[in-house]
Amino acid sequence: MLVMMKAHATREQIDAVCDKIASLGLHAHPIPGETRTAIGVTGNQGPVKAELFESLPGVGECVPVSKPYKLVGREAKPETTVIDLGDGVRIGGDELAVIAGPCAVESPEQARAVAAAVSASGARLFRGGAYKPRTSPYSFQGLAVDGLRILAAIRAEYGLKIVTEAIDVESVDLVEEYGDVIQVGARNMQNFSLLKRVGRSSRPVLLKRGNAATLEELLMAAEYILAEGNYRVILCERGIRTFADHTRNTLDLSVVPAVQQLSHLPIIVDPSHGTGRRDKVIPLSRAAVAAGADGLIVEVHNNPEEALSDGNQSVHPHEFEQLMRELRQIAPVLGRSLP
Amino acid sequence: MLVMMKAHATREQIDAVCDKIASLGLHAHPIPGETRTAIGVTGNQGPVKAELFESLPGVGECVPVSKPYKLVGREAKPETTVIDLGDGVRIGGDELAVIAGPCAVESPEQARAVAAAVSASGARLFRGGAYKPRTSPYSFQGLAVDGLRILAAIRAEYGLKIVTEAIDVESVDLVEEYGDVIQVGARNMQNFSLLKRVGRSSRPVLLKRGNAATLEELLMAAEYILAEGNYRVILCERGIRTFADHTRNTLDLSVVPAVQQLSHLPIIVDPSHGTGRRDKVIPLSRAAVAAGADGLIVEVHNNPEEALSDGNQSVHPHEFEQLMRELRQIAPVLGRSLP
Amino acid sequence: MLVMMKAHATREQIDAVCDKIASLGLHAHPIPGETRTAIGVTGNQGPVKAELFESLPGVGECVPVSKPYKLVGREAKPETTVIDLGDGVRIGGDELAVIAGPCAVESPEQARAVAAAVSASGARLFRGGAYKPRTSPYSFQGLAVDGLRILAAIRAEYGLKIVTEAIDVESVDLVEEYGDVIQVGARNMQNFSLLKRVGRSSRPVLLKRGNAATLEELLMAAEYILAEGNYRVILCERGIRTFADHTRNTLDLSVVPAVQQLSHLPIIVDPSHGTGRRDKVIPLSRAAVAAGADGLIVEVHNNPEEALSDGNQSVHPHEFEQLMRELRQIAPVLGRSLP
Amino acid sequence: MLVMMKAHATREQIDAVCDKIASLGLHAHPIPGETRTAIGVTGNQGPVKAELFESLPGVGECVPVSKPYKLVGREAKPETTVIDLGDGVRIGGDELAVIAGPCAVESPEQARAVAAAVSASGARLFRGGAYKPRTSPYSFQGLAVDGLRILAAIRAEYGLKIVTEAIDVESVDLVEEYGDVIQVGARNMQNFSLLKRVGRSSRPVLLKRGNAATLEELLMAAEYILAEGNYRVILCERGIRTFADHTRNTLDLSVVPAVQQLSHLPIIVDPSHGTGRRDKVIPLSRAAVAAGADGLIVEVHNNPEEALSDGNQSVHPHEFEQLMRELRQIAPVLGRSLP
Repeated sequence: MLVMMKAHATREQIDAVCDKIASLGLHAHPIPGETRTAIGVTGNQGPVKAELFESLPGVGECVPVSKPYKLVGREAKPETTVIDLGDGVRIGGDELAVIAGPCAVESPEQARAVAAAVSASGARLFRGGAYKPRTSPYSFQGLAVDGLRILAAIRAEYGLKIVTEAIDVESVDLVEEYGDVIQVGARNMQNFSLLKRVGRSSRPVLLKRGNAATLEELLMAAEYILAEGNYRVILCERGIRTFADHTRNTLDLSVVPAVQQLSHLPIIVDPSHGTGRRDKVIPLSRAAVAAGADGLIVEVHNNPEEALSDGNQSVHPHEFEQLMRELRQIAPVLGRSLP
Repeated sequence: MLVMMKAHATREQIDAVCDKIASLGLHAHPIPGETRTAIGVTGNQGPVKAELFESLPGVGECVPVSKPYKLVGREAKPETTVIDLGDGVRIGGDELAVIAGPCAVESPEQARAVAAAVSASGARLFRGGAYKPRTSPYSFQGLAVDGLRILAAIRAEYGLKIVTEAIDVESVDLVEEYGDVIQVGARNMQNFSLLKRVGRSSRPVLLKRGNAATLEELLMAAEYILAEGNYRVILCERGIRTFADHTRNTLDLSVVPAVQQLSHLPIIVDPSHGTGRRDKVIPLSRAAVAAGADGLIVEVHNNPEEALSDGNQSVHPHEFEQLMRELRQIAPVLGRSLP
Repeated sequence: MLVMMKAHATREQIDAVCDKIASLGLHAHPIPGETRTAIGVTGNQGPVKAELFESLPGVGECVPVSKPYKLVGREAKPETTVIDLGDGVRIGGDELAVIAGPCAVESPEQARAVAAAVSASGARLFRGGAYKPRTSPYSFQGLAVDGLRILAAIRAEYGLKIVTEAIDVESVDLVEEYGDVIQVGARNMQNFSLLKRVGRSSRPVLLKRGNAATLEELLMAAEYILAEGNYRVILCERGIRTFADHTRNTLDLSVVPAVQQLSHLPIIVDPSHGTGRRDKVIPLSRAAVAAGADGLIVEVHNNPEEALSDGNQSVHPHEFEQLMRELRQIAPVLGRSLP
Repeated sequence: MLVMMKAHATREQIDAVCDKIASLGLHAHPIPGETRTAIGVTGNQGPVKAELFESLPGVGECVPVSKPYKLVGREAKPETTVIDLGDGVRIGGDELAVIAGPCAVESPEQARAVAAAVSASGARLFRGGAYKPRTSPYSFQGLAVDGLRILAAIRAEYGLKIVTEAIDVESVDLVEEYGDVIQVGARNMQNFSLLKRVGRSSRPVLLKRGNAATLEELLMAAEYILAEGNYRVILCERGIRTFADHTRNTLDLSVVPAVQQLSHLPIIVDPSHGTGRRDKVIPLSRAAVAAGADGLIVEVHNNPEEALSDGNQSVHPHEFEQLMRELRQIAPVLGRSLP
């Protein structure tokens, strides 16, 4: 259930409703909106009685939630959530969020070469894995904390915000310390222990859609995070598994308008994993922005042919530069801008 | 095998090579390119001996074909095929080809209402089914020849080129007579008898990808048509079947650059069947053009709520008008234009 | 709607109801059951008024149909349909129907070698394609009428019933003449013109599930055949297309009990196309029978390594002999027998 | 690389090879076979030189591994691994392993009711979740350690071996303490931190195939466990995600013979999650055994209609009893037995 406060409800009135919810052994999730605050109620078994709240001061109405998710839905918050990372960098706002960088952090030199290039092209967020989930136990698994330190140095030098993956509960502490946004990978989309842990983090979370996840499952995974109190979640489409064999995955761009209809959370697209082929990354990046995505996360490598992972799907810096030029032309059609 | 003629080979030299091929019981397929003509050889069991041709006048070289398809590949013809329908309407050229109209022709009034609207918005091709393949034998199956006559009247009145579906060998004769482009639907992509029949037609063919077809199967289906002598084929992505349930099909836009890499045939996108949801058609149409498609085929209905088929995925005329405005802004990024 | 006659309704009463239906411009489909006859009514737009029939002599009740299919559903006929091919060969009865033979008829010698072997092992039906739908226009397309004549000779010599594919409307006439059961292939499952044509045939039809067809689409395809008056349809599961790459298709055995719950039509399984790998055919054949299938259609070749098509998935005669021995042990668990 | 010892190599010779491997900074995995021991070498970057080992006493030959997995492959160990749980209960041996019990442990009464029934029917292993990974954060998440204590009581009372899921690294300690086999669920198949943790456990691991995992990915996930030193892994097919909508998942029984060809690990089947429908569980259980599976894991509930999770796919005790009777008839065809 959602308790919808009146437009001019006071802070005290909101707190009083939350206290009432807590007194019933339930959890209150105040979600401030542009015109009014909605308070999500979770923890209940079965329906909650509306009359318990409707007479409290400042309460407008109580509305049952028609979907299995409560906090991520547009019912709880009509406006798209804008996640502010500081220094003017926002995800979900008018400016498209372009996150670029290598699949894995390999060395300070590699990270700096890529960071210098993508920064010059206009990216304001940097990606790079310090912990790499790999299909084979014998593949390169990332530089771990050494990689995180390299990322922190990149932020200091280039002013780029850092997006990097936590692969388990253990690694969240360090990712929180060194990064700006915690990435949860596609294979971990339903690692519920990890979702609960990042739900208790003060960092925003970039949640990737699993390669066989329905839209509802993606939203429910996000709900796990919000239910723990972290409302700053960015969804990410990165391709689904189908019979088609001309790409590594099939990028499902229709999920962009579908998310935007159902949820207030921003949605970005990963064309690198979404296609797995360098020559498809640029066309599909343009397509993602044209479909209305709030941003992109793109793998860029200064020497893709020798990358330790995912070289086939990483674009060269000059290709990324070209992409950014093209996106600057398309963005205005959607009412968006790009640095 | 492809016999590549020299740049200035004469008509007589080309004919002589074709005669030589025929004398061996094989089929010759001369494919004129910008700089030179390639002659595809089909009908052979096993490899053909290059020395049989290499000494003939005007022959440059003989190249074996590395793919299972011969005539549809870029090896046979490096430049993209442009299909000229007359009156300045081309598919595969600089101008995007936008085909718009109702799922099914229902009445002269309905067809005229939609045609007037889409024509005013800048579409130069009209779609509308006279023969409808339907999952249920009890559903509306189209107006048949009456529908074709309505379409011919639309062409006469609005100057729109007509794209309409032939559902079997029997219906091709009439579709050829009344239409400008013969559509082969997704369910018929591997109806080889139908492919052979339209391969002997003088009309261009719009070939839709089956909902579980790989890219190679799509190209092999087109090869059936070219192998019969009809080189004017337009490919069409219209969504594949996956587990995802937020759309009717999953539109696979990555096939656009993939086709363009492997084949010289133009590729367009059908966002209506590709998503099955009206509110997804416009975002995915923009995305298709941004991905580099040569055009779109879009369902437009003057009264979608009462359409006899596919109303849920048909856009209103005013939505189509808005789409065309947006496409005009995106097209230049790809070096394309729109009327 | 179904008009359910009383248990002892006379032939005349049934005819009178059919006449009444016809007089309304609708189609009557009398479906005799063990205890009473159901008369399916098709051709209507919207619901039919029950009171038009309920007072007619011999009518028990009128029941609306809850599914999109009318004639193939268990509502119309509670008992499983048994298709009698003569000479004691039945599909859907207590005895499992095992159809065995080569993918394609290649020569009289090959056909006889396989027929002798499978007949000796207990098969009573022979498969073999005279018309082969092939992905490539350059692949072997079958011996056509020469193949059909070979099949007819096999029947004469070995007493095997002949199951062979019609690939288009044109080929149905000859397949009807030479064969005992007309096969409609997976690629043609929604070739509605072909379905209507075989619906007017006096031969039973083996209808294969398309590789991306839902169960409902399969039943609707069968409905096309029954709606034309041919009630002798055998359904066939032959694998669906998924991401899994260890087999050519993914055999969906759960469709066997699912069909048996919804429809009265018999359902058999094709483990050869269903797996595409010889070493998977025998385990999956056993599994299909254990799941409750009414029979199997298995590719057997005397020399699979040199088969003109599908050699990889054809079993050797001695493997087929072993399979039949194993099936004889499993069949009794299901209350079935095997010759 | 695999170092294959001679048939009569001594314990000392094997140890000496392992020491040599360790001295190179690599990891040695001695895998005893029926006739000889293979020693897997992991931890290397690039190929290992065979000559370093071939002259050591007792070494037969060094063979490079042709697959991405080393330790789970048949190359490393030709005989199927039999996992002995004590008290005569084995998985992978002649006797089929049937694991039965409720989806979730709900109460001592429920667990005892189900345990009494399945034990009486011949099951020797009991399943029941104490930690439940659920799509919704608001669904019942299991009784945690209270559930584990109930399971331990079941073992004490009925002599059933306990199979129960660990959902994260944290829960492994307790599952190890109370259970006999640690289950890793489908959603966690690529939770590599969890795989590494159970790879250091002394308990066998039941590893479920992810719903979009290829066979190779499943084997690589098992490789993670073996690479840490735990060679007692049981694989489990539980259905993959496809477009088919008549079942919750599509059970891919072809993976049973495919695993048996490539790997020495036992493979069992979960028809409950594999179909998600009670009326499909028994037919598909029979099919799994007929396909050659080493066992089954089946959800049984004394009151499925009121189960806290997965009631729709749980069979009643009397249905399970019937299933066991049927399996006893099918098992001998495969050379298997059942208590």
